[in-house]
Amino acid sequence: MLKRQTKDFINIDPLQTGGRLTEEAKEALLEWGDGYSVCDFCTGRLDEIRNPPVYDFVHKDLPEFLGCDIARITTGAREGMFAVMNALAKKDTWIVMDGNAHYSSYVSAERAKLNVAEVPNTGYPEYLIKAEKFAEVIEETKKKGEVVLAMITYPDGNYGNLPDVKKIAEICESQDLPLLVNGAYAVGRMPLKLKEIGADFIVGSGHKSMASSGPIGVLGMKKEWEEIVLKRSSKHKNKEIELLGCTARGASLMTLMASFPAVKKRVEKWDEEVKKAREFASKMEELGIIQLGEKPHNHDLMFFEAKILYEISKKAKDGRFFLYKELKKRRIHGIKAGLTKHFKLSTYGLKQEEVDYVLQAFKEIIEAYAKT
Amino acid sequence: MLKRQTKDFINIDPLQTGGRLTEEAKEALLEWGDGYSVCDFCTGRLDEIRNPPVYDFVHKDLPEFLGCDIARITTGAREGMFAVMNALAKKDTWIVMDGNAHYSSYVSAERAKLNVAEVPNTGYPEYLIKAEKFAEVIEETKKKGEVVLAMITYPDGNYGNLPDVKKIAEICESQDLPLLVNGAYAVGRMPLKLKEIGADFIVGSGHKSMASSGPIGVLGMKKEWEEIVLKRSSKHKNKEIELLGCTARGASLMTLMASFPAVKKRVEKWDEEVKKAREFASKMEELGIIQLGEKPHNHDLMFFEAKILYEISKKAKDGRFFLYKELKKRRIHGIKAGLTKHFKLSTYGLKQEEVDYVLQAFKEIIEAYAKT
Repeated sequence: MLKRQTKDFINIDPLQTGGRLTEEAKEALLEWGDGYSVCDFCTGRLDEIRNPPVYDFVHKDLPEFLGCDIARITTGAREGMFAVMNALAKKDTWIVMDGNAHYSSYVSAERAKLNVAEVPNTGYPEYLIKAEKFAEVIEETKKKGEVVLAMITYPDGNYGNLPDVKKIAEICESQDLPLLVNGAYAVGRMPLKLKEIGADFIVGSGHKSMASSGPIGVLGMKKEWEEIVLKRSSKHKNKEIELLGCTARGASLMTLMASFPAVKKRVEKWDEEVKKAREFASKMEELGIIQLGEKPHNHDLMFFEAKILYEISKKAKDGRFFLYKELKKRRIHGIKAGLTKHFKLSTYGLKQEEVDYVLQAFKEIIEAYAKT
Repeated sequence: MLKRQTKDFINIDPLQTGGRLTEEAKEALLEWGDGYSVCDFCTGRLDEIRNPPVYDFVHKDLPEFLGCDIARITTGAREGMFAVMNALAKKDTWIVMDGNAHYSSYVSAERAKLNVAEVPNTGYPEYLIKAEKFAEVIEETKKKGEVVLAMITYPDGNYGNLPDVKKIAEICESQDLPLLVNGAYAVGRMPLKLKEIGADFIVGSGHKSMASSGPIGVLGMKKEWEEIVLKRSSKHKNKEIELLGCTARGASLMTLMASFPAVKKRVEKWDEEVKKAREFASKMEELGIIQLGEKPHNHDLMFFEAKILYEISKKAKDGRFFLYKELKKRRIHGIKAGLTKHFKLSTYGLKQEEVDYVLQAFKEIIEAYAKT
């Protein structure tokens, strides 16, 4: 069998910390693993299946959790973003998005043939997206053509910054511009309700932050967008065009549903996760490894600048791969091989002893190489 | 836990018979179940991961298996069709597709904003798609506007008919029109090579026909289309726009890879599957249940007309649900609840004793109700 070498490692890759399966999801995987299993019970469309209770999940649990009117399952956050963009795009129109957006936001816009205007961040060391700048870019872009959508990444996947999304939503509303929130690193980790934000659309990622087996995501929206974004086929009257009829319809959906009760609970403990992340960052700084991005930090995803490790890499036998190898030796995974000066990591869901173990590892590595 | 009631039933739903996991795939599910597991080993893009050997699978095994130059992983056959259509679509252009096409072909075309012209089948009782008719519709459609793509479903998912795809490919080539083959019910069940057909694109479905956990599919194409269909982002130079960067990147991909050696082998035994299907159909006909579609039949997916069951349903206590309930009692699943007069089923991968058991069930049911 193809083994996953990192399976029992402490994984601090922000991509992975929120996607680890619950025990319930592991059981669901095997029970529903075959092909398209859920379709055994189909009566016409995925979200209408009553048993297993996909209908209740999509039409009751998810809208409540996301704080929205209408929700759907997608094959990932990016696919949800693309669905919204493709539904709203018209010839020669624009989208305004934050400059910290995930690459897939930009690629989704290209696929939907939208022109992209980016709101720059404030640069080193905080890389913040400011609401005022957002307003400015919207205004400038409107001079170039019709703007059909704005998008904000909350938080972004590089610095873990949480911009003032309510203020950005207000700005968009005053400009009569719908706002899409990419919550791939928020939905399933922290409390977040579309209605409280005041935005129009929200996407989340099952594999990134909802303890699910990928590819799977969620899409939420205000009722007023249902007819546009979930427009139905002219020929196949029950099928929603932007979802190509049905999306994730096997084990991935069942893991999302199986983990959901635990995910709902863990979101309530978000304060503890933030506290853990801040403590971790401050201990890293004691080692000379500086946390960039918002400070004090409000998310488990953190970006670090480690000049001290970079200096070591210049002399180390394994060069820039020394850090990866040293961490691997200690069964810690998640910092990309070859990175030393700048890297991101996440403490989400780690036990205190695991956090301590990771900190101890950094300390030992620095001390060991400082001697040589 | 949410149980799958039908897990240990004999499943004759054509959606499910080719998607049942191999033992290797079941192991892979648990090993790689977490979130985005495969991304632990990412160096920039899904298909470039060397360990697990995604690179070899996508760039060597799959092209060889599909008989094409370039292959990619998608989240399903429909997503592959949409990627091709969206890449080729221009304002006010057309696609010509067979009238037996799966609904998702039509919906994909609508999503790509293509106008659709359909090639009608020959109607009752065979519902064949004729190559000459295909040529005729292409010619007519060209008078209405630019045709950018033709599509043929091989076989279709209703009758299991296998049209003369080589002849259709010749016609398209002579018209300078690229041809997309929807092989969702072929790739992984029967031998099929894009180059032997002479078409331009092929899509397959992991959950339908490659013993994989959905959502997952494959896309193959001739080299000449690479730059158009796999066009890269102007900003994120390594990311393919139509794939939104990366597609299925967790357990679903690993089940596809784990089942692949077994899938390659089973394809070689296709003749046995056809023989089994034909024998089944002939025994059904002895019971008065007539196989529609191509005859003799060349695929495990078969469509039946059962006037005798329809007559029973008019008087049965459970009405039109009697058949579903009688089969369920016998632990047979796959004919939609409420259907009696027309239904499809598949004998793919069933052992001879299971085939006999299903036939015996139909016989018993008919006899039991005939008495009353």
